[in-house]
Amino acid sequence: MPESRRPQEFGELLSLWAEIDDLENVTSILNWDEQTKMPRGGAEARADHKATVQRILHQKLSSPKIGRLLESLVSYQASIPYDTDEAGMLRAAKRAYDRATKVPENLVLEMSRTGSKGFATWLRAREAKDFSVFSGDLERIVDVMGKVASALGYEDTPVDALLDQREPGMKVADLERLFGSLRERLVPLAKRIFERIDAVDDSVIRQAFDIPGQWKAGLMAVRAIGFNLDQYGRADTSVHPFSTTFSPHDVRITTRFMESFLPTSLFAFLHEAGHGQYMQGIPVKFRRTPISRQCSAGFSESQSRMWENLVGRSRHFSKYLLPRLREVFPGQLASANVETWYRAVNRVRPSLIRVEADEVTYNLHIMLRFELEKDVFAGRVKVKDLAGAWNSKFKEYLGIEPPNDLLGVLQDIHWSRQFGACFQGYTLGNVISAQLFEAALLAHPSIPEQFEVGNCSALLEWTRQNVHAHGSKYTPQELIVKATGRPLSTEPYLSYIERKYKDIYGL
Amino acid sequence: MPESRRPQEFGELLSLWAEIDDLENVTSILNWDEQTKMPRGGAEARADHKATVQRILHQKLSSPKIGRLLESLVSYQASIPYDTDEAGMLRAAKRAYDRATKVPENLVLEMSRTGSKGFATWLRAREAKDFSVFSGDLERIVDVMGKVASALGYEDTPVDALLDQREPGMKVADLERLFGSLRERLVPLAKRIFERIDAVDDSVIRQAFDIPGQWKAGLMAVRAIGFNLDQYGRADTSVHPFSTTFSPHDVRITTRFMESFLPTSLFAFLHEAGHGQYMQGIPVKFRRTPISRQCSAGFSESQSRMWENLVGRSRHFSKYLLPRLREVFPGQLASANVETWYRAVNRVRPSLIRVEADEVTYNLHIMLRFELEKDVFAGRVKVKDLAGAWNSKFKEYLGIEPPNDLLGVLQDIHWSRQFGACFQGYTLGNVISAQLFEAALLAHPSIPEQFEVGNCSALLEWTRQNVHAHGSKYTPQELIVKATGRPLSTEPYLSYIERKYKDIYGL
Repeated sequence: MPESRRPQEFGELLSLWAEIDDLENVTSILNWDEQTKMPRGGAEARADHKATVQRILHQKLSSPKIGRLLESLVSYQASIPYDTDEAGMLRAAKRAYDRATKVPENLVLEMSRTGSKGFATWLRAREAKDFSVFSGDLERIVDVMGKVASALGYEDTPVDALLDQREPGMKVADLERLFGSLRERLVPLAKRIFERIDAVDDSVIRQAFDIPGQWKAGLMAVRAIGFNLDQYGRADTSVHPFSTTFSPHDVRITTRFMESFLPTSLFAFLHEAGHGQYMQGIPVKFRRTPISRQCSAGFSESQSRMWENLVGRSRHFSKYLLPRLREVFPGQLASANVETWYRAVNRVRPSLIRVEADEVTYNLHIMLRFELEKDVFAGRVKVKDLAGAWNSKFKEYLGIEPPNDLLGVLQDIHWSRQFGACFQGYTLGNVISAQLFEAALLAHPSIPEQFEVGNCSALLEWTRQNVHAHGSKYTPQELIVKATGRPLSTEPYLSYIERKYKDIYGL
Repeated sequence: MPESRRPQEFGELLSLWAEIDDLENVTSILNWDEQTKMPRGGAEARADHKATVQRILHQKLSSPKIGRLLESLVSYQASIPYDTDEAGMLRAAKRAYDRATKVPENLVLEMSRTGSKGFATWLRAREAKDFSVFSGDLERIVDVMGKVASALGYEDTPVDALLDQREPGMKVADLERLFGSLRERLVPLAKRIFERIDAVDDSVIRQAFDIPGQWKAGLMAVRAIGFNLDQYGRADTSVHPFSTTFSPHDVRITTRFMESFLPTSLFAFLHEAGHGQYMQGIPVKFRRTPISRQCSAGFSESQSRMWENLVGRSRHFSKYLLPRLREVFPGQLASANVETWYRAVNRVRPSLIRVEADEVTYNLHIMLRFELEKDVFAGRVKVKDLAGAWNSKFKEYLGIEPPNDLLGVLQDIHWSRQFGACFQGYTLGNVISAQLFEAALLAHPSIPEQFEVGNCSALLEWTRQNVHAHGSKYTPQELIVKATGRPLSTEPYLSYIERKYKDIYGL
């Protein structure tokens, strides 16, 4: 669309939206600082800062002016092709406006405050390894999230309302079907692998790896996959790894370290850099517009999980990675070869921590959290009993029980601020990543061979063009079809997993 | 004042002010990140973020609602004692409101944008050591600041209007008198010292000091003077050292390092920690009110210069400091004794960099900047010729000429964002610091002896009670009388300088 043919109201909408987008980025900056740099004493004031920005953001997003402008642009929207940026912006603006007008300001504020306070308490609870320190805060968070869900409206479960914010158009029932089809083939596979649990030796990655070396190794890997660390990004440490964006030219990732286990930092680096590549890939021309963000939580996770697993844990990329890691850790990796490394980083076993779980059991961690969220909202599990419920469900799903709450219910940052529909994005990401990867391979069959020499540009370029370039112009359902030619299916993911792990475990 | 006797409008004003104060802190967070952590590519978006927050802040600060509330509280204000917190809050709110309503929103925005862009260009100009890279940006900054001055209103020079923002009630003519009385005694003193320039040997501080060691040494010193680095503060590096506060419990300082000159980082640490102590000392009950800040730029600098110089560069504190520095740098400081160290860190010589200048010549650096600002606004010096004007004035004042612009006109961050009345605070700070120190000594004569064992609590406590405790409740003129019993005078500062340097140089 030439700008000259845009109605004046469209320009007015965009200039209001520029402020909204700025305030969203400001919130992200406040959060990034809170999680990476802020001295502990700053928590109380930071909660105020964030609540004030949230309140102003909500006022601007739900202002009647936006409503009137959207109204007046309905016929313009109908007159332009669906695929234009302008039409995408109007669709995205309408969705955001409708959601914002449903949730009253005091609730937005309450959510911001309980989240800030919750995060600080969660940190203390982690130190004490004791969920009871945090359960009072979590009760308030659940209460607020329930009120948010009621304000947004739902038919079956509050989780539906919260899910729609992250995956527009998706229902809990859809997810249950998807989880069902995964469970059907992953649970038997996991069972067969557990019978051969000693077939893979991962002692090579369980040695002493000094932190400065892990930094160096991680930055090398992150650069190899094409994340721009120098001009447009940076890396830090935080309690829980995350990524965030303040513009495509200012994208931040974090990791954390375990001295005795190299994959913790290395694959968190790759995971967050995968997110970061998506953030760096949103066209600069979408900056400060309604389509400046990623498509959905699931699509975001598709990028992180793709680079972490389909690339980072592949045999091809291992051929590139291992010699470079050996330069940093010559003693520890002296006797490792690509095959021992590849098998070690793909070892399957029942494990306690989601972010370190192997690909076969990973989705069980997600299903467990998703079911507990539904149980809490349905009143089947009380918040104060959540640690116990976690532990017994964990035992049921994975056959082991966390020795303390830090390794159990307190492990993820998500529930420190919000509750409900927090985790399904990871499983959706797994499923989407395999479908995207399959399509990219079809277009560029030599992608895996390129990994062996550390050339990730063909895959990155394909995702840039087919995913990143669209920002949040489309719904996830539209985008998956646009990028791969068909609707979301668990098939590519399941065959990838089965092929890979039957090979590794000789099944 | 019991809260129950406050009129309802006072509560309304405070709740509006809480948002204003939050947004000021958000701006500070955005600035801190920009200067310490932001990847270079983030500059464009950051300018947007800051401009948006600035615009909203200005709208809130100048809103007619604030005007009406202040109006309706006039009789309440008249009915309560001048020294109550409430009266101080109303005075401070009125000053801020009056200033905000005078400057139109588009000018606030322009100032924010030219400042952000200017800072990025200034960084590039520093790399090129070439002022001409930056002069176009500075022209725009001067232009904007001139418009701001006109909007605020002035009689003699635009600098008067800008000065009043930093030193309420002070005029350029007052400053000229103050500078004059300093010049009268400092210039002859400097001249006599320059004749004996080799009387002090500072080779002990001009060796190779590794950066990790400098970090360790600096943090030790900062902790010794009582800055809370653990729970309520943090330290980082930046191009130009600075300090900032987001609440009394979240105060950040920065420093920078020179491998071959220990004082650069050490005294920047002490200087910024001095600021930081003031910020940490503002009562928490003033948080989110109109009196949550420091009294004035001059009073802020009085705290930084006091801890940097009257404490940090004193013979007494050196007795504590040197043995601890020797633990970090045993080789370099093996043969140093307190007297060689004390003399070295107080060596007087014509030098290029303000923040590294000795106490005797320091104020000449300030006068030079102050005069150039007046010259530019009066049209006597064109911005594009500022580097040349700097160099020739420098030659006139200090007898030397900067070999490049990085060591000349590009050295300070201040003109990268603003212009006019940027520097006098440092000289005022010097003068105030000596007057405060004299009063503190009168109350606690053993303060200097306490420094020898690293006990700074008596001085810190005195400043807490007599300066920090008041936030911005009083004008600088009121506060100096309140704290020391008399109006501002250059006498304590000049006698301190003369006593100290006549001793060191045997005059």
